Amino acid sequence: MKDAHIKQLKEYVNLVEDNLYRYLVGNYNASLEEDVISAMKYSLSAGGKRLRPVLVMEFCRILGGNVEKSLASACAIEMLHTSSLIHDDLPCMDDDDFRRGKPSCHKQFNEWLAVLAGDNLMVKPFEIIANDESISTMTRVKIISLLSKSTGFQGMIGGQVLDIQNETRENITEDILTKTCLEKTGALISCACQIGCLCAEMNQDKVALARQYAENIGLAFQIVDDILDVVGNQELLGKPIGSDQLQNKCTFVTLLGLEDAKLKAEHYTNKALSVLKSFPDNDFLIDLTNSLLVRNY
Amino acid sequence: MKDAHIKQLKEYVNLVEDNLYRYLVGNYNASLEEDVISAMKYSLSAGGKRLRPVLVMEFCRILGGNVEKSLASACAIEMLHTSSLIHDDLPCMDDDDFRRGKPSCHKQFNEWLAVLAGDNLMVKPFEIIANDESISTMTRVKIISLLSKSTGFQGMIGGQVLDIQNETRENITEDILTKTCLEKTGALISCACQIGCLCAEMNQDKVALARQYAENIGLAFQIVDDILDVVGNQELLGKPIGSDQLQNKCTFVTLLGLEDAKLKAEHYTNKALSVLKSFPDNDFLIDLTNSLLVRNY
Repeated sequence: MKDAHIKQLKEYVNLVEDNLYRYLVGNYNASLEEDVISAMKYSLSAGGKRLRPVLVMEFCRILGGNVEKSLASACAIEMLHTSSLIHDDLPCMDDDDFRRGKPSCHKQFNEWLAVLAGDNLMVKPFEIIANDESISTMTRVKIISLLSKSTGFQGMIGGQVLDIQNETRENITEDILTKTCLEKTGALISCACQIGCLCAEMNQDKVALARQYAENIGLAFQIVDDILDVVGNQELLGKPIGSDQLQNKCTFVTLLGLEDAKLKAEHYTNKALSVLKSFPDNDFLIDLTNSLLVRNY
Repeated sequence: MKDAHIKQLKEYVNLVEDNLYRYLVGNYNASLEEDVISAMKYSLSAGGKRLRPVLVMEFCRILGGNVEKSLASACAIEMLHTSSLIHDDLPCMDDDDFRRGKPSCHKQFNEWLAVLAGDNLMVKPFEIIANDESISTMTRVKIISLLSKSTGFQGMIGGQVLDIQNETRENITEDILTKTCLEKTGALISCACQIGCLCAEMNQDKVALARQYAENIGLAFQIVDDILDVVGNQELLGKPIGSDQLQNKCTFVTLLGLEDAKLKAEHYTNKALSVLKSFPDNDFLIDLTNSLLVRNY
């Protein structure tokens, strides 16, 4: 990415990281509940690309909205994403002991606290948006509806259901893998871009275009993840290489082969870039989209 | 309860049970995600008193609101309550194999599906309320904010944290037990009464009174639960008697003794009844409040 864009990205990430905890806890003095707050804080501060909040803020900005108006929603969506990571890592789900190079929440604390920390990160975002006086009540209601739907069984949670079912499903087709990915990874990414448009008070046409862009980068993003699991660098990724193969998992790489998977990721990236042409001031987003394709973590 | 009130109660319960599933799934054709929908449906249809939705609808009605306006919120709060039951029963939490006389969700299905069914029942309610066009956007936003706060670490989830911590805490005082109960059981009950007022477009004074009523019945309700665990009928309760004692759990009965616990339940019931005097058309609620004290399940 260009230096100016790296700087802009850092500013967004800092803005999110400086405000996540404030939105989560506010002025509440949680003397007795401090364990669950520590667990939430641990997972929220574990880093990551902060892709979803960045997309919320950048879509808001390029469409003429004040970035401040999108900050609460940006933090809210990062909480929901973090919540899903905590629950996905649980022993009864993907059973992952590490996340971003650190012990996962249930290993650092314990299982019941990880369930409840995830639960809280699943409901709190809706209070944060409902209380966000920088946007109209109608916009808040639209964002909450979209965020809830994108998180539920028609989105992220539904995608996790499919993903676990795929472990034992025979004859997984590219269609099923694509649907799984569109729900599990794509739904919140798509929601982020659409929320950015809503914060800038855009109409449905713009929101639909943002969704189209996001679905394509969601697919490209997942395919690159699958590729990195085969050819990536363990240290940069913060997780072991080859875990998909070890678990005999069906991925875009096992289904299409490495070369065709790379072509597919490029295909979706190009589709995303083509939709971006309908948006003004799109330099940063073009650079970000390309960087998601060529990343090494 | 009087026959007329039993009839009214049944009408409310039927209204909720007839609409829960419709609000949950709508017209969505969930061919691939049907497992998680079956799990949610199983737990939602497992019965129970439906106390929270009944309170939403009755507070709305007595304050001059149309009951139809409160139906979506009533169903939403029952989903959140059900979600907490599913997660509380998990092996890493209270590890209960039965709920209301039937296998708990993770026994009937499996653990990962129970986690995801609970997760979905935790986010879906906010979409339902956000889409509820029978009330103003401002009322929707107020209800969502209240419901999220009452569910999170300052409410139901925080109460579950305290409850699990209490298992190993030394010297549990009545204050800690009361705070645990106010959060774990009381927060959603209180939220239900307040939402009823909001659906009837009442001001903050009325909402605060409803909250006061609810906190008192929440405490009385939990104390009666503790009493029934000692002197109740296993068949009527749908769960084994003496499980608190078996787990060496500190309850209002172990802390105060059976007789003083009964007096305490009466005390809170009387306080609740006294607050009810500020509400019009309160016959049903008086009868319901008394019935919660003398119930045998």
